[in-house]
Amino acid sequence: MKILLIGATGTIGDAVATALSNDHDIIRASYRGSDVTVDLGSVDSIRAMFQQVGPVDAIISTAGQAAFGPLTTLADDDFQLALDNKLMGQINLVRLAGDTLNPGGSITLTSGILSRQPMPGSAAISMANGALESFVQAAALELDTIRLNVVAPAFVKETMVMMGMDSSHGISAADTARAYVVAVTGNNHGETMDATHYLA
Amino acid sequence: MKILLIGATGTIGDAVATALSNDHDIIRASYRGSDVTVDLGSVDSIRAMFQQVGPVDAIISTAGQAAFGPLTTLADDDFQLALDNKLMGQINLVRLAGDTLNPGGSITLTSGILSRQPMPGSAAISMANGALESFVQAAALELDTIRLNVVAPAFVKETMVMMGMDSSHGISAADTARAYVVAVTGNNHGETMDATHYLA
Repeated sequence: MKILLIGATGTIGDAVATALSNDHDIIRASYRGSDVTVDLGSVDSIRAMFQQVGPVDAIISTAGQAAFGPLTTLADDDFQLALDNKLMGQINLVRLAGDTLNPGGSITLTSGILSRQPMPGSAAISMANGALESFVQAAALELDTIRLNVVAPAFVKETMVMMGMDSSHGISAADTARAYVVAVTGNNHGETMDATHYLA
Repeated sequence: MKILLIGATGTIGDAVATALSNDHDIIRASYRGSDVTVDLGSVDSIRAMFQQVGPVDAIISTAGQAAFGPLTTLADDDFQLALDNKLMGQINLVRLAGDTLNPGGSITLTSGILSRQPMPGSAAISMANGALESFVQAAALELDTIRLNVVAPAFVKETMVMMGMDSSHGISAADTARAYVVAVTGNNHGETMDATHYLA
């Protein structure tokens, strides 16, 4: 399969590329530093990316920005970033993929465990994640020729180490990537795929 | 209790006002035709409403616009309406209620069953509803002096009749209102309250 991977330079994206690259042709896209450049917050940039890469058999997004912080200090712009980038950026991949994604193909987005297991400071991120999961479930009802899913990763061990957090409950990026492999190669459709359910 | 009810002219809002008005003082707000005028899509309008009504013991929103339609025809503006009005309009009630809501008070928002039981055409509404439910669960973790919940109504019988739909599986507005009464008078916090669980 020819697979477009958006967010390829991220910790999860890199692990997903590694997990899929033996068997598939991966086109790496990200905000900077990849084969293809894309700004998820811009519809024009998403359109340009799709034109540049041409037909693909799968689209994976491990991208999307959102701000973490106390509810009392989250500003209008913080909510807007989550809505424009992590939420609508990924939704617009679905809306605009039409001519680029081959029939029988799949789109896999990324939400996160904070939609259903929030923590103090996650209000804006939880909002975006919950929105993505309900959108995917609804939109899938109208998508007959492609599959659409969203992977909800738990906290990634490597990220927790990088942030100086206790990583004992984290899931490695390589383990997290397994959910994406199932999403691309399996028959799932309209599902929120809890990444902890697909460990080795 | 002094209760600010936003969306008071709607089918659910009117039933909530009826259910609460024997025991409480209801200040009705809506886009037009109520004691107080408010445009949920405008932060300035929400601020002005709060200044006008002064301290209250509970805030209920049964308001929020979002567009229904096939995914292929939903425009950027349709998604934006759901995000600006139904989603951020209600979230901004929480963010801006600070000085208006008395300690010990409660905020009750409205999502809807389509977050978890979507139907074709509900992608934008499901998105907004799922976002609200995850936001409420997350934000509640940071709210110690007030309670925050979101009621998820099923399809309302009166609305279905008005739209010429088969209303046999609908829940009456009066029955739907019961979840709001529990949200305001009970101890719930951070919950998505499925309105079908609070029937007579």
